[in-house]
Amino acid sequence: MNTFGRRLRFTSFGESHGAAIGGVVDGYPAGIKIDFDLINQWMADRRPGGKNASQRKESDAVEFLSGISPDGLSLGTPIAFVIKNNDVRCSDYDLLKDAFRPGHADFTYMARYGIRDHRGGGRASARETAVRVVAGALAMHILQEKGIEVKTFLTQVGKAGDTGLLERLARNPETAHTYEVTAEINKALEEEIEKAAKDGDSIGGKVTCIALNFPAGIGNPVYDKLNSRLAEAMIGINAAKSFELGLGASFPSHRGSEVIDEMEMDQDGKIFTLTNFSGGIQGGISNGMPIVFNVGFKPTPTIARPLPLLKQNGEKITALISGRHDPCVALRGAAVVKAMCAFTLADFLLQIPPESV
Amino acid sequence: MNTFGRRLRFTSFGESHGAAIGGVVDGYPAGIKIDFDLINQWMADRRPGGKNASQRKESDAVEFLSGISPDGLSLGTPIAFVIKNNDVRCSDYDLLKDAFRPGHADFTYMARYGIRDHRGGGRASARETAVRVVAGALAMHILQEKGIEVKTFLTQVGKAGDTGLLERLARNPETAHTYEVTAEINKALEEEIEKAAKDGDSIGGKVTCIALNFPAGIGNPVYDKLNSRLAEAMIGINAAKSFELGLGASFPSHRGSEVIDEMEMDQDGKIFTLTNFSGGIQGGISNGMPIVFNVGFKPTPTIARPLPLLKQNGEKITALISGRHDPCVALRGAAVVKAMCAFTLADFLLQIPPESV
Amino acid sequence: MNTFGRRLRFTSFGESHGAAIGGVVDGYPAGIKIDFDLINQWMADRRPGGKNASQRKESDAVEFLSGISPDGLSLGTPIAFVIKNNDVRCSDYDLLKDAFRPGHADFTYMARYGIRDHRGGGRASARETAVRVVAGALAMHILQEKGIEVKTFLTQVGKAGDTGLLERLARNPETAHTYEVTAEINKALEEEIEKAAKDGDSIGGKVTCIALNFPAGIGNPVYDKLNSRLAEAMIGINAAKSFELGLGASFPSHRGSEVIDEMEMDQDGKIFTLTNFSGGIQGGISNGMPIVFNVGFKPTPTIARPLPLLKQNGEKITALISGRHDPCVALRGAAVVKAMCAFTLADFLLQIPPESV
Amino acid sequence: MNTFGRRLRFTSFGESHGAAIGGVVDGYPAGIKIDFDLINQWMADRRPGGKNASQRKESDAVEFLSGISPDGLSLGTPIAFVIKNNDVRCSDYDLLKDAFRPGHADFTYMARYGIRDHRGGGRASARETAVRVVAGALAMHILQEKGIEVKTFLTQVGKAGDTGLLERLARNPETAHTYEVTAEINKALEEEIEKAAKDGDSIGGKVTCIALNFPAGIGNPVYDKLNSRLAEAMIGINAAKSFELGLGASFPSHRGSEVIDEMEMDQDGKIFTLTNFSGGIQGGISNGMPIVFNVGFKPTPTIARPLPLLKQNGEKITALISGRHDPCVALRGAAVVKAMCAFTLADFLLQIPPESV
Repeated sequence: MNTFGRRLRFTSFGESHGAAIGGVVDGYPAGIKIDFDLINQWMADRRPGGKNASQRKESDAVEFLSGISPDGLSLGTPIAFVIKNNDVRCSDYDLLKDAFRPGHADFTYMARYGIRDHRGGGRASARETAVRVVAGALAMHILQEKGIEVKTFLTQVGKAGDTGLLERLARNPETAHTYEVTAEINKALEEEIEKAAKDGDSIGGKVTCIALNFPAGIGNPVYDKLNSRLAEAMIGINAAKSFELGLGASFPSHRGSEVIDEMEMDQDGKIFTLTNFSGGIQGGISNGMPIVFNVGFKPTPTIARPLPLLKQNGEKITALISGRHDPCVALRGAAVVKAMCAFTLADFLLQIPPESV
Repeated sequence: MNTFGRRLRFTSFGESHGAAIGGVVDGYPAGIKIDFDLINQWMADRRPGGKNASQRKESDAVEFLSGISPDGLSLGTPIAFVIKNNDVRCSDYDLLKDAFRPGHADFTYMARYGIRDHRGGGRASARETAVRVVAGALAMHILQEKGIEVKTFLTQVGKAGDTGLLERLARNPETAHTYEVTAEINKALEEEIEKAAKDGDSIGGKVTCIALNFPAGIGNPVYDKLNSRLAEAMIGINAAKSFELGLGASFPSHRGSEVIDEMEMDQDGKIFTLTNFSGGIQGGISNGMPIVFNVGFKPTPTIARPLPLLKQNGEKITALISGRHDPCVALRGAAVVKAMCAFTLADFLLQIPPESV
Repeated sequence: MNTFGRRLRFTSFGESHGAAIGGVVDGYPAGIKIDFDLINQWMADRRPGGKNASQRKESDAVEFLSGISPDGLSLGTPIAFVIKNNDVRCSDYDLLKDAFRPGHADFTYMARYGIRDHRGGGRASARETAVRVVAGALAMHILQEKGIEVKTFLTQVGKAGDTGLLERLARNPETAHTYEVTAEINKALEEEIEKAAKDGDSIGGKVTCIALNFPAGIGNPVYDKLNSRLAEAMIGINAAKSFELGLGASFPSHRGSEVIDEMEMDQDGKIFTLTNFSGGIQGGISNGMPIVFNVGFKPTPTIARPLPLLKQNGEKITALISGRHDPCVALRGAAVVKAMCAFTLADFLLQIPPESV
Repeated sequence: MNTFGRRLRFTSFGESHGAAIGGVVDGYPAGIKIDFDLINQWMADRRPGGKNASQRKESDAVEFLSGISPDGLSLGTPIAFVIKNNDVRCSDYDLLKDAFRPGHADFTYMARYGIRDHRGGGRASARETAVRVVAGALAMHILQEKGIEVKTFLTQVGKAGDTGLLERLARNPETAHTYEVTAEINKALEEEIEKAAKDGDSIGGKVTCIALNFPAGIGNPVYDKLNSRLAEAMIGINAAKSFELGLGASFPSHRGSEVIDEMEMDQDGKIFTLTNFSGGIQGGISNGMPIVFNVGFKPTPTIARPLPLLKQNGEKITALISGRHDPCVALRGAAVVKAMCAFTLADFLLQIPPESV
């Protein structure tokens, strides 16, 4: 199952060190003007090579093969694209031919398929997330037509971070519209990453996502819930380990009387809530308030220190794994969270509107 | 979309105060001896009416309509079942005909469908989870044939709880096999619920789930990941607001060097890890270690105090909502987490085994 | 996979001689007034017990369990229904406990599942089609709101039939709006059935389906074609063995120049074709003309004569199989073709309209 | 929906005159040695440019991008491939920018999407079937491991053909193993095509498909039937208009007593039938006999004569459409029928085997 989404679907393919990675977006509405600058911007946000990211140079030029007319309009047919794998240094990975790295999918792949492409993690590489970003940027076009915004922020790295953010966003929903990480906090986050990198180590992080102007009444009440599908999308990102909606993991500490989202109707007849503990979704369906959630990332398991590997024959060795790795995957993870959120919201937006029947 | 699962699927139906709720389990293997006692036990664990649960008396007798031979063996055909709605007091809900409760799906349903069954929350009622428990208990049969166990524990209520549990389970994987909540903690949890109930309030809680002996190599690497499907299953439970796998939301505070799951091979050639920070899943595929995760529940929004309601015409009123409600949904949520976990694991276990091709 | 449809789905359950059969229709739009008389009429059209149909007396009372409000409006939630199995004479089938009938699914079920409910064909019984008729009648409500009609006719039995019908419907598309089988042909068809019944035999038949006023532009161009999904729906009906769209199996005998559907635009700007060889679908998408197809049914394999059975141990026996069987399944098949056509058309009608994005 | 299959799935993309067409095969088992010669052979069988086929020169070089290890083994990950569109003469199609051809999807596409790529039929072009052939050839690898064969024959063109073939295959099942179209009939078929081509016309045709050694017990009894999925696959091929399984459209003319497939068990305990009227499938599940069906193709609607076109403004014109077209699509259709049959059978073969649970 390398397909994500229901009404809007993307199918992803490609190994990290094969000929190319790419994807096919199906169910995309016809007649949308494709904004290639937006796609390139989103790709740049995810691209490794920054000061604190993997040094792999991915030009990441996205080549579109179908689904777009010569004048740049979507045709309603599948949009296929490929990203060639250029900067491929396979020799980096010879060691891993018959050895499993801790915390990676090396062993589990082998257990699943009995064969694997060991070069750069093969299909399990974070490189695959480039495909998600293209798909997410395409989905963003659909959201933009409705004035919907999606923003993500790196809000925690190690011990540094914007403490109490989810609670502030819940108590003052307006905050969601203007939120920015302060320069001070940004500096603290960067320092944490730099310190980890200098130590030849990696570090975990948390990404906060805010979607604005998503209309009320989108979602489903039981299994295809907007929140459960967002959780699936987020926990499906490489290294993502926690998902919290609204007040999230702080909810269990509270009493019901403390977290009531009182409703009101404004002069235009639009219903809103005075607080947003729910994070914009109630009973699986959006309520028109900002959608707010957190995604926690584990630190990259591969670090610039000798690591204990297990060879397929059971022998344990200690080795320094070359290759290029992010000291903090959450940094680039913010671009992937944004993409997967945009894709999921667009997928739901395409559900059959009740008034069209 | 009222269907959950891919290879093993259940379709759920029914409103809280309609004629019946029920479900259809499809893709169930043939020839399995159905253990009705197990199903009844799981239903009893979820049943309201306990000291600290909703006082609705659901006899919850499960009537099977198909898919099981006269001598109790599964036929491979769909297993359909119904649970009649007996103890239905619709008059409790007259107030809600044109008023929305805060924190419930009343408004979002209306926004989605333009019509709703207001009685007892209709389709959004926690009553629907009874169907999940039957489906989960049926799925458990498939797991049991492989020696797989699934356990859930209420581990936090309000400020009381088993602090640091995820970290202990990660550092000493063996703990997962014998873990029980201590009598002392259990007492503290109960007291929190009782205090909330006495105050006419409700309280949040956290459920920890442990699955043992799930084999390595089950899952998929990119979108149909075992972890992302578990997240979807859990966040799809009524009132569930957070999901944490392995070390979960504590990961972001750590450096990579601190959370390495070092691998070894035992004398039988089975690979295991010395620690289990990953929570039993790497790259979307099980690694044979205990699967460990947390689910956080918000407090029930309906409490035994006057609440601010919004009428459909925009008028705000304050009213005491009668009806029977749980002071802590997480208490019964433990049975639902267990069911959804069992169902999801069984669904994956039925994926095409590589050796069968 | 006991679910049919994509946007509108029904899941069917039940064995012929178990407690009940039934179904769940999901994805049904909210706010539709359910016409129970229509459902009962469609059920009556399918019901056995007529002069020339199986003598099983199925009261076939459809009991709805969910998805419909007390005042008869659809809620947008799953509509579940059950039909109890009352007139069950299991002893009729004792012979079949370990013997396979020719032309039935007895052996193939056993090969598939290793276990079967031998009573009345179990899940393979034509009784399951009652569920399809309920689902189809519900789907018909959606079509009726758009003025779409679906008609089916028994047009051939044995050597008797309305010869050249598909060609006449293709050459004069208007014929589709007024077509009725003549009294003379109807009499010939009945006589064929009676003769077969008198001889203790069964006979094959053909059903022609015409759908009117289905709008242009519905369908998909490559795999989820309107025609391929209709073919799937029809060949999925018990005993259906051929499917022909438009000119159907006569197309191979023709040259291209003979079967051109020339287009014109009427005064309202509506495009139509002067002939309808295509049967209303081009490139997988409806063109606004009548949708016309044929379904051929084989004769019931179980007849009122001694038949060669194969016992599971390999022994061959000859036995008269009691039980109640149709001399011509195509007779009741017309109701099932109508139901499956209505369901498939409604499923497509619910596809996301391009203008709603 | 540009994806076909359930367990084994392929997603197709590409317009006839865009940059490339291609596909992604997902769910493909790991560890299969890819036979590129087989793939090229199947592509050659479908390729236009023969004496009686479209003169478009498609080099049709298939470039694989993922899912195959450097030493040619499938990795279990998605196999993506592209076929560049080289011989593209877009000017051929300028006329069609705002004019609809009869019998093509020009108008229906416009009605569906409000936009279309008019060049060479865009997505509706028969060029898309090249993708199906690659997918089918990959699927064939899975069948070959089980000794399953799939053969297709052009058996009718216009009035010429192998009359009574389905009946002979039904009465003498062994015939299926050795059947070849005689040289005499082949000559008659070729002459029919040549005559039509010489007249600037096209002609319809029929393809017969035979699958051998497909094991008993594969399929599903109600909606995911092996026969209904084959019908969907076949009627989904461009220009396919009829599907007949076993005795097919001749069944309605017969009495039950005439078409009984009497069963026997051979010395190895394998059950077989003395005749094969059913065409190898009973109750949606294979019975181990040869699977036999016919697919009827309409003549290509575009012929080398002036045709009546409809402009989008309603004006009717008559024009000779240049471009390169097959006089008989059924000729190349045989390769596509084989591919779609192989893919569908492999998809079913990957269903969870009962013994693996």
